[in-house]
Formats: sequence, structure tokens, C-alpha cells
Amino acid sequence: MSNNTNMVPESYPMNGGDGSNSYTKNSYFQRAGTNAMKAIIDDVIAEKLDVEKQISSSKSTLRIADLGCSVGPNTFIAMQNIIDAVQQKYQSHGFASHMPEFQVFFNDHTSSDFNTLFASLPPERPYFATGVPGSFHGRLFPDFSLDFVHSSFALQWLSKVPEELLNKNSAAWNKGRVHYASAPDEVAQAYTAQFAKDITTFLDGRAKELVVGGLMVLIMPGIPNGIPHSSSATGLMFDFLGHCLMDMAKEGLISEVQVDSFNLPIYVASPKEMTQLVERNGCFSIERMEMTQPWARVDDLSGQACTMHLRAGMEGIISKHFGTEIIDELFDRYCKKHGEIIGLLESKLNEGNQLFIVLKRI
Amino acid sequence: MSNNTNMVPESYPMNGGDGSNSYTKNSYFQRAGTNAMKAIIDDVIAEKLDVEKQISSSKSTLRIADLGCSVGPNTFIAMQNIIDAVQQKYQSHGFASHMPEFQVFFNDHTSSDFNTLFASLPPERPYFATGVPGSFHGRLFPDFSLDFVHSSFALQWLSKVPEELLNKNSAAWNKGRVHYASAPDEVAQAYTAQFAKDITTFLDGRAKELVVGGLMVLIMPGIPNGIPHSSSATGLMFDFLGHCLMDMAKEGLISEVQVDSFNLPIYVASPKEMTQLVERNGCFSIERMEMTQPWARVDDLSGQACTMHLRAGMEGIISKHFGTEIIDELFDRYCKKHGEIIGLLESKLNEGNQLFIVLKRI
Repeated sequence: MSNNTNMVPESYPMNGGDGSNSYTKNSYFQRAGTNAMKAIIDDVIAEKLDVEKQISSSKSTLRIADLGCSVGPNTFIAMQNIIDAVQQKYQSHGFASHMPEFQVFFNDHTSSDFNTLFASLPPERPYFATGVPGSFHGRLFPDFSLDFVHSSFALQWLSKVPEELLNKNSAAWNKGRVHYASAPDEVAQAYTAQFAKDITTFLDGRAKELVVGGLMVLIMPGIPNGIPHSSSATGLMFDFLGHCLMDMAKEGLISEVQVDSFNLPIYVASPKEMTQLVERNGCFSIERMEMTQPWARVDDLSGQACTMHLRAGMEGIISKHFGTEIIDELFDRYCKKHGEIIGLLESKLNEGNQLFIVLKRI
Repeated sequence: MSNNTNMVPESYPMNGGDGSNSYTKNSYFQRAGTNAMKAIIDDVIAEKLDVEKQISSSKSTLRIADLGCSVGPNTFIAMQNIIDAVQQKYQSHGFASHMPEFQVFFNDHTSSDFNTLFASLPPERPYFATGVPGSFHGRLFPDFSLDFVHSSFALQWLSKVPEELLNKNSAAWNKGRVHYASAPDEVAQAYTAQFAKDITTFLDGRAKELVVGGLMVLIMPGIPNGIPHSSSATGLMFDFLGHCLMDMAKEGLISEVQVDSFNLPIYVASPKEMTQLVERNGCFSIERMEMTQPWARVDDLSGQACTMHLRAGMEGIISKHFGTEIIDELFDRYCKKHGEIIGLLESKLNEGNQLFIVLKRI
């Protein structure tokens, strides 16, 4: 039940607080994703939520968890959307008098800034709020204690960098790169294997925690089936970040060894991969599994905006490895060179870059 | 369900972090109270917890809340004690195979340092941990969602200073004092009335949140029936703190007006008062209501130790009113003059200064 300290997955919290570089102020791409999902989530709840079962179980509380919620405000919008849709379904089915109370569990790594999250909770929220510290790669909740699980832009984070990447004698040694996007197959395979392990423990945990009939909505960066890793929008941005770091190494601002030993623990999965992992787990039916393109709705793909977003999400992990003193320089370079990739980035985003999954505990 | 922002009670968090002035490092008087309570809580659970009912309800999770938990470590010790006692009861009654899972809800004001609390959670805990931000003078949990409520050294905090104390035209204007201990009757009455209101809303909330048969253990500073307010150990310390502030005002370090407008929102209740308030609520049976004297087990009543404890709990509220720059000076004075009250303090502590209450939801 408790985490073994030797096994606590690494955590890379988003920038805390609410300053100009904070995740709070720089997560509107993710928010665009959340908003675009509202209509789909409305549909899913209208179609798939078993209201009769909830009522017949005489439980008066519907428990919802947001796994990897970060520090808001996106998580508040997502939770409100879900509750609105549930209330709508109860009303439209004539069960308004059986309306449940809602308890929302906001989960993220223990090192996430829960103080900021709690301070920014909407004052007039239609739910009881709780925070749950810990990795969703382990157990977080008692058996059968959740009715609905949501996780948005979190499952792409691996619990750790695959070890082979740091081994000079391995074919998966990732010299001169920080990601697998344009790396040799062995590197990509190491990432794929780590992702499979992580999703397996994630699904095992949630299978225990969700009630039978409970729904799980997963939103994450995705790559269409059959497209090479190097062609994802995320891969493109990380490759580009790697180039900026290598430029700095060549100028002697950081060492090449530092770059060689740095790898972003982020994986972008395809629908096919996720389908296989869910089927192998065997506890969930796949209600939806589709690629969407919500970022196409974001107007601002300027260097400034893209850089701020990348920084809000990546500053923590980059500082931890290279020190905080390189951060401004690195993202200045990224921002200035952003024009080189913007055309390509736009076309990738239009191909669809987000995976939307609905699972039901069977 | 949500707090109206106009009604959010004031919060005075204990010193956060884990530095030398932190509550974490300076709450061993409270911890002595918690430890002394272990034997009594063992008894209470052995006698009063209805294991058969829990099992017959086929609920697999036992949910425990610690209200006003502060930042640890006392709350972790208290929760472990309760869970040990519950497990012991299940085992001794032959229900080991029905052992529930435990979910612990750590509650304190939204401004409390949950980041420190979460970071210091025992790694090998036998429960799923969650944090619940908000005032226990409002609702915190869904209906009938808790099996056990614990609150230690928190209910003495009033939700606000009674307004009459700040009104120069009121008989309850508390000029030259920071507490009601040796004040005119009108001041004490204003405190008593505010305390009654606060306990009433507290009991109303918990009556909704606890399952029928659920237990509530309340530990708080107390004063024996029939003893004047001025004679409580707490009253003695706060009077003394008021004298130190008035000395500083006379020397021009702060203004007398500042002292006049400052009042500690802390109340020390008698068993008789609490009995009346519980009976008026009508949703709980009183299983225990007794004065104890756990502080008598604390060896160190030195000026240094007492001052550090007072400072860890009171620095926040005093800084907010007077500014941080007077804090060192104030507590230096308190420490140097502590010898003047130590004899009296010791005798007060021996009379019993802690109220221990067990209620059952009926």
C-alpha cells in the first residue's frame, strides 16, 4: 500500500507558484486540449456512465480522481466539466432527486506544489476537494474507492529514464541527443519498453481502485499509428531542444558529457500501442481510442508562446541536471530559432497529436 | 458545500517548514499529549468501535480524518495509533481476514503548509494519505463518508476574534490585554459566545459527515469545571505574553493601540461547557469527557522550551498584527521573564489542563 522508498518514481514537477514562468500561467496549450475535450467528455458521460447502477448502490458520493493534476487551473476546468456532465445526465434521466455529492481527489507527485493548488481552488466549487500526494505508478487509493478517473497530459511522463540510455557500452547510449525522436532504434525501443512497464503498473493500480463500471478518461500526447517517432510534434520540439543544448556544449557553456547523460523521460504513444497494453491488462473495455488535434485550435504558435510553455513544463527537470544558470540562455536560443521549425510544427499538429482514450472497468 | 468567501474563517497556520522555529520541531508538548492519549484511544477503540457493523456494511475502507492536523509529525503518530488500535481490535475479535484498508484525510486551513506535511509522510505508512484544505468550521467531506474523526489541539482556535473586543464603546473592549484570562466578565463572555458558535457549526458539520456509529476523539486545552478563566495554564501564559507586549508598548517599541486591538482567538473550555454544547447538538452520545494532565509528563518546562513552543504556535498570528520585526524581541523577553511564572505554571499543569472527549454519532 505504501511506496517503498527505493521505488519512488522520479518526479519533475511543473513550475510552481503563479509567476510569469509558472505552469499556472503557461499551460494554455494543455487547457486548449482540456476545453476541446469537454464536448467529447460530455458525450462519454451521457453514453457510458451507468447512473442506475450508481443509484442502486445507494452510495451518495461520486468520487473522481485527477491523476497528475499539476497546479491548476486546467484541473479545475476538467473537474467542473465532468461534474457538469454527470449532473446533466442525472437530470435528463429524471434522477435529479438522487444527485450525488462529489468528492474530487487531486493527485500529483509529492513534490508538486499542493499549496498553490489548494490556494487556487475555485471558491464556489460543487465538490469536496482533497489532495493525494504520490506517483500514479503506485497505488494511491483503497480498493474500489473511485467512480471516475481522469488524467490529462501526465501519462507521457515515464517513471524514470531507461537505464540503457546512460550506458556507454549499450547500443541504446543516447549520445548527443535528449530524446528518442531521431535516435537509433535501440534508443526508441528502450523508451517503448519503459513506457509499457509504466502503463502496465498504472492500469494494474487503477483496476484495483475503480469500481466495476467506473470510467477512466486518459488524454495524452499521441502519434498516429504507423508514423515514425521522429515525425511527432513533441519529437520535433525535443529534438530542437537537444540541438540548442548541443550548440551550447559546442560553445563550451555546458559539457557534451552533460548532454549525453540527459534524456527527457517523456514518451508519445500511438493508439495501437495503448490498445495492446490495455488488452494485455484485461480489466478494462476500450470505449474510445482516437487521435484528436486540439492544438490546431490554439492561435498562438509564436516562438515566445511555445517557448514559455516548454519552459513551464521542462525547466524543473533541465535545472536539476544542468543547473538553473543555463535556463534563460537555453530558452532564449530556443525562442530565437523557433522560426526554423514553426512551419513543420504546424503541419504535425494538424495531423493530430493527442490521444484520447476512454476505458471502462469491467 | 463550498465555503462562501465572505465567511471563510481566519486562519493562523503554525510555523511551516522544518527549521528551528518550526512547529514540526517545536510541538513536543502537543506530542506528549498525543502519546499520553495512545493508551486511552486504545481503550476507546477496543470498547466503542463497532467492528461487526463495519464488516456487515461490506465497506472495505475505513476512513479517518484528522482535523486541524498542522504539519506533522504529531498527526502521523496519532493516525498510526488509531490504526494500530483498530487492527488490534479486528485481530482480537477474529476478524483479521476482514481487515479494512485505511484512508486518512489530513485536514487543516488552506494556508497550512501541506507541501511540508506531504513531504514528511512516513514512507511505510499503513494507509492511503490525502490532504483536505479548509476550515473545520465549514463542511469538508460528503455526507456519511467518515468512520472516525480525530482532532487534537485545534478546537481551541476560534474562527475569529469576537467583534465586541475591538469596539471602544463596548464593555467588552479589551484594552491592554490580548486574552480574556484576567479580563472583565464581558470580555470572557464574548469569547464564550464565539466558542459556542464555533463548536456548534463544528458539531453540525461532523454530524453530517460521520456514519452512524462513527467515533470522534477530541483533544483540546481544557479547564476543570468551576475554576476561574484566569487560573488556567493557558490563560497564565497568554496573560504573561500580554504583559511582555505592554512592556514593549511602554518603551515605545510598539504602540498601545496595537496591543489594544490584538486578541488571541483561543478559548479554553471546561467539560461542563462542552457537555452542554454536545447535548444541544443532539447527534452524538458522550462516551468520555474528562480532564487529563499529559503535560505533567513533559520534563522540560524551561524558559527556552516553553518559549519555543509558544513561538511555533503564535508567531504567525502575532507577526500578522505587529509585523515580523518584533518577534525576536518579544520572545526574548518572554523567555527571560519565564522564571516568574514557572512555579505557578507547574501547579496549574498538575491540576489538569487538557480535555479529552469521545463522541459517538447516534
